[in-house]
Amino acid sequence: MIDDDVVHVGVDVGGTTTRAVAFDTALVPLGIESAPTLHGADLIAERVGELVAALGRSVASSRHPATIAVCMPGRVDVATGTVADAVNLGIDAPVEMGALLASVLGAPAHLENDVNAAALGTFHELGLGVRSSLAYVNVGTGIAAGFVLGGRVWRGATGGAGEIGHIPMRADGPSCPCGQVGCAEAIGSGRAVGHDPQRREHVVAAVAWTVQLCALTLDVDLVAIGGGLTEVGQPFLDALDVQLADRESVSPFLRSAGLRSRVRLAPAGVPLGAAGAVLAARADIAGVAQRAR
Amino acid sequence: MIDDDVVHVGVDVGGTTTRAVAFDTALVPLGIESAPTLHGADLIAERVGELVAALGRSVASSRHPATIAVCMPGRVDVATGTVADAVNLGIDAPVEMGALLASVLGAPAHLENDVNAAALGTFHELGLGVRSSLAYVNVGTGIAAGFVLGGRVWRGATGGAGEIGHIPMRADGPSCPCGQVGCAEAIGSGRAVGHDPQRREHVVAAVAWTVQLCALTLDVDLVAIGGGLTEVGQPFLDALDVQLADRESVSPFLRSAGLRSRVRLAPAGVPLGAAGAVLAARADIAGVAQRAR
Repeated sequence: MIDDDVVHVGVDVGGTTTRAVAFDTALVPLGIESAPTLHGADLIAERVGELVAALGRSVASSRHPATIAVCMPGRVDVATGTVADAVNLGIDAPVEMGALLASVLGAPAHLENDVNAAALGTFHELGLGVRSSLAYVNVGTGIAAGFVLGGRVWRGATGGAGEIGHIPMRADGPSCPCGQVGCAEAIGSGRAVGHDPQRREHVVAAVAWTVQLCALTLDVDLVAIGGGLTEVGQPFLDALDVQLADRESVSPFLRSAGLRSRVRLAPAGVPLGAAGAVLAARADIAGVAQRAR
Repeated sequence: MIDDDVVHVGVDVGGTTTRAVAFDTALVPLGIESAPTLHGADLIAERVGELVAALGRSVASSRHPATIAVCMPGRVDVATGTVADAVNLGIDAPVEMGALLASVLGAPAHLENDVNAAALGTFHELGLGVRSSLAYVNVGTGIAAGFVLGGRVWRGATGGAGEIGHIPMRADGPSCPCGQVGCAEAIGSGRAVGHDPQRREHVVAAVAWTVQLCALTLDVDLVAIGGGLTEVGQPFLDALDVQLADRESVSPFLRSAGLRSRVRLAPAGVPLGAAGAVLAARADIAGVAQRAR
């Protein structure tokens, strides 16, 4: 039974822009409000409050949100609402983000890591079922992954799953700001290539390696690629396919693993993070979302 | 309620030796029978049948096994009992191993991949609970991992999860029989170092990299190390700790990820594979085992 009066709000706190999206119960967007992201936990919470209020005026004036779900970078403890290591947002040490948001919003807000939320949003948009598994590789300023295993987000023991950008992929690679050498993120992230499209080959090489890593480690049904550096879409996918074909051409083992057939682009023009944040919050939607275990 | 008359039999079909172990319901070993592994699906099944029969005579003469569970290398489809890619056992194309075993044994046998079984056996022996997660890295002729996530074995979409030995860890590494260059398995497996203890540094380097891979990708609570090349025990763990400390010393990021504190040796002197195979079969033991999803 769908209640047409019910609205769910998902907010994606990005490095530069914060976007709040109102959804109906079928996860169809009803409206969107956005503004530059402010830095520091208090200002982030205030900005979220402003955007949710603006959505209330523009879209859902007669409907109080049944869900308010927020996703943001960093190590998010979903159970406690604590966020740490979101350095680009001016958050280093753990902050009680959930409590701050609840205070501003006057209602509890569910928190989720942004890449995990995008993974869950992509899983939903690709129409995958609860027996399916997906790795979502986000290629933006950094490289990180979110995993949906058997229909559920896998967050890890400390909320730190998916830090694949800091696994060394070549010993002779460039230095990474993290202190290591040859990390995938030091080779093929936006930070590494200066967001220069001429250097896309490095991005494609790094992403091909992460596809192989996700497919061989977790044997997921699909690996979806998203994030700012992949927004060109099909040309990126084509270049990635050439790389994966090269890898498969020298290795019957990789060929039998079927890397190429598992790759998808994350859907474009869809607020994946906001949608995924709502899905994560709505743990009652059978099997698709998961609360912290 | 423990029924003292109930016996569970786990059989570990290894590359050189096949071991059958009878357990009571608390997973305490009651007896063991072993013999050289025969090659080819039919002979493997016959050998399993002989050993289970021998156990029946030596240990469990008055008790018919409540469970017969078999683990072996290769791509095991737990739901159908099909096994493929167990090249060292003379099995390449998929064979109906479950049906062969049932025919020989006169009873159904649960099949599991050997590394997944050892992961589940280790998870049990380390006393981990259903909220915990473990990566078990097996370092023998090859390198592969098994994952227990939230108390359940994660087998992947095609039963192929854990093939971390064939992710390249350095572009300038040696050629791997799989066709790639610089795979972890080409650097630090038993096949790579010729089981030569003088070359243990290569093994330790490769295992340190797999520990980092498992910790950053899945954020598991613990990474357990097992397999023939780690049987020396504490000295191996000490050498691994030095490697991980070196990695952490250059990277605050890695230090905060706490690689060193997550590492354990898989328990020695315990039939981990046979025990894990029984655990996998006994899906009714709350949350510890998982049927194919």
